[in-house]
Amino acid sequence: MRIANLDGRLVLLTGSGALDVADASGGLFGADPQAVYPRWAEFVSWAATASGGAPYDPARLGPPVPAPRQVFAIGMNYHAHAAESGFETPDRPTVFTKFPSCVTGPRGSIPLPPGGDTDWEVELVVVIGATAREVKAEDAWNHVAGLTAGQDLSERIGQLAGPAPQFSLGKSHPGFGPIGPCLVTPDEFDDADDIEVSCYVNGERVQSGRTGDLVFPVAALIAELSATLPLLPGDLIFTGTPEGVGLGRTPPRYLAPGDELVTGVAGVGEMRHRLI
Amino acid sequence: MRIANLDGRLVLLTGSGALDVADASGGLFGADPQAVYPRWAEFVSWAATASGGAPYDPARLGPPVPAPRQVFAIGMNYHAHAAESGFETPDRPTVFTKFPSCVTGPRGSIPLPPGGDTDWEVELVVVIGATAREVKAEDAWNHVAGLTAGQDLSERIGQLAGPAPQFSLGKSHPGFGPIGPCLVTPDEFDDADDIEVSCYVNGERVQSGRTGDLVFPVAALIAELSATLPLLPGDLIFTGTPEGVGLGRTPPRYLAPGDELVTGVAGVGEMRHRLI
Repeated sequence: MRIANLDGRLVLLTGSGALDVADASGGLFGADPQAVYPRWAEFVSWAATASGGAPYDPARLGPPVPAPRQVFAIGMNYHAHAAESGFETPDRPTVFTKFPSCVTGPRGSIPLPPGGDTDWEVELVVVIGATAREVKAEDAWNHVAGLTAGQDLSERIGQLAGPAPQFSLGKSHPGFGPIGPCLVTPDEFDDADDIEVSCYVNGERVQSGRTGDLVFPVAALIAELSATLPLLPGDLIFTGTPEGVGLGRTPPRYLAPGDELVTGVAGVGEMRHRLI
Repeated sequence: MRIANLDGRLVLLTGSGALDVADASGGLFGADPQAVYPRWAEFVSWAATASGGAPYDPARLGPPVPAPRQVFAIGMNYHAHAAESGFETPDRPTVFTKFPSCVTGPRGSIPLPPGGDTDWEVELVVVIGATAREVKAEDAWNHVAGLTAGQDLSERIGQLAGPAPQFSLGKSHPGFGPIGPCLVTPDEFDDADDIEVSCYVNGERVQSGRTGDLVFPVAALIAELSATLPLLPGDLIFTGTPEGVGLGRTPPRYLAPGDELVTGVAGVGEMRHRLI
């Protein structure tokens, strides 16, 4: 199953296009995409019975999770990216946040902070569909609503400043957390634990990886995080980025006004942004 | 003006006790304490005309901000605390989060994570009352709804683990973000930039400081944060803790089951928790 946010309304994506969920369900489910996650199991049952849909303009898609309560982001979760960033591979997940106000949709323009060094980071993003607390890895996928693509845009000067760099603020400028173009349930993937992720700048492929190489795979992240706190329906986990970021190049390379950034997760689709 | 969360409902605290806002306003304002912050200026005007109230049981108070969108927490924001923690004083704020699921009220018990080293950190907490984006320090207080007391409870092993410690996860166990007992508007303080904060464990005063000693005072924090992203109504800023935490002692001292923790901010009141 695939859902999306079209003009701020929850839609089911079918073979025919987009089906407005509030209309098609006779109000059983509301229009707010965020409100579906606390009722995820019920929604999945309803969606299996729904049909119809109409063509839509992908430029009108917003973030499939517009207002998450909690956004978890994982650092150094691919060995080669940890190395290119100058860190050791962690023996437990490195967890920071992207403050929720940075979440945006899969299209449009993103402002570059003046004086900053803004870098790309394609990531697989997990959306929680059922509260997870002290969940074992083997049960973890049962708490996932679906997967989407994300960009963990990062202003490196702010990210790494200070005596104990906390990452979060430099990664939370407006527009720095795009997700989309849709949410796809795990059953739609041949292997939800080995998904290709890729990133292109002006048509050049700058990152390419597979989530099979994650140091802490999706299930392990849910187990580790939920050992500390509850993951809530509609929470996001940005699972980390593979190697190939601008910071790791010699000399470093950062995004410039006018650059086109394409962020892809196989089986989900692509996001397309212009830096301004 | 003082407001609180009584049994999950917004109340105005008056000379007579607690006045239920939804009832007294005839439904102009709802019962949900979180919903008042996006309408803060309107609420302040209404509250000036309200009267009445009845005695209440302080044990039934919940967090005055039960579901913040964003929680900003500032590390090493007092010189002596930075030193006792083994860090230099930052030249810009060290910003992490306490994940919102850890927010709780001013009374009750808080579980200690097994195998952890849980420490106390009294803090002044700022509640945003109007969206702040690129705000200058001299205008910053106009974006504040009020102040409350907070505990930035911290499990030090988790906080400091890994090659790039991110603080947030170890500070976000359930119950690790108590706030209360009420929210007090800035005009109620003799000097809102110099407020005494204190912390007691089993009756012994372990921390005592004044926000006049903050490296980055409230207005500077709002200016710095809002230079990067929008602060939203109902967001929290935990402004940092003064010296005297358990980590800084020789030998270190941590909280144990049965300990009573009292967290005070002068002009706001005290929170009282039992560790279990």
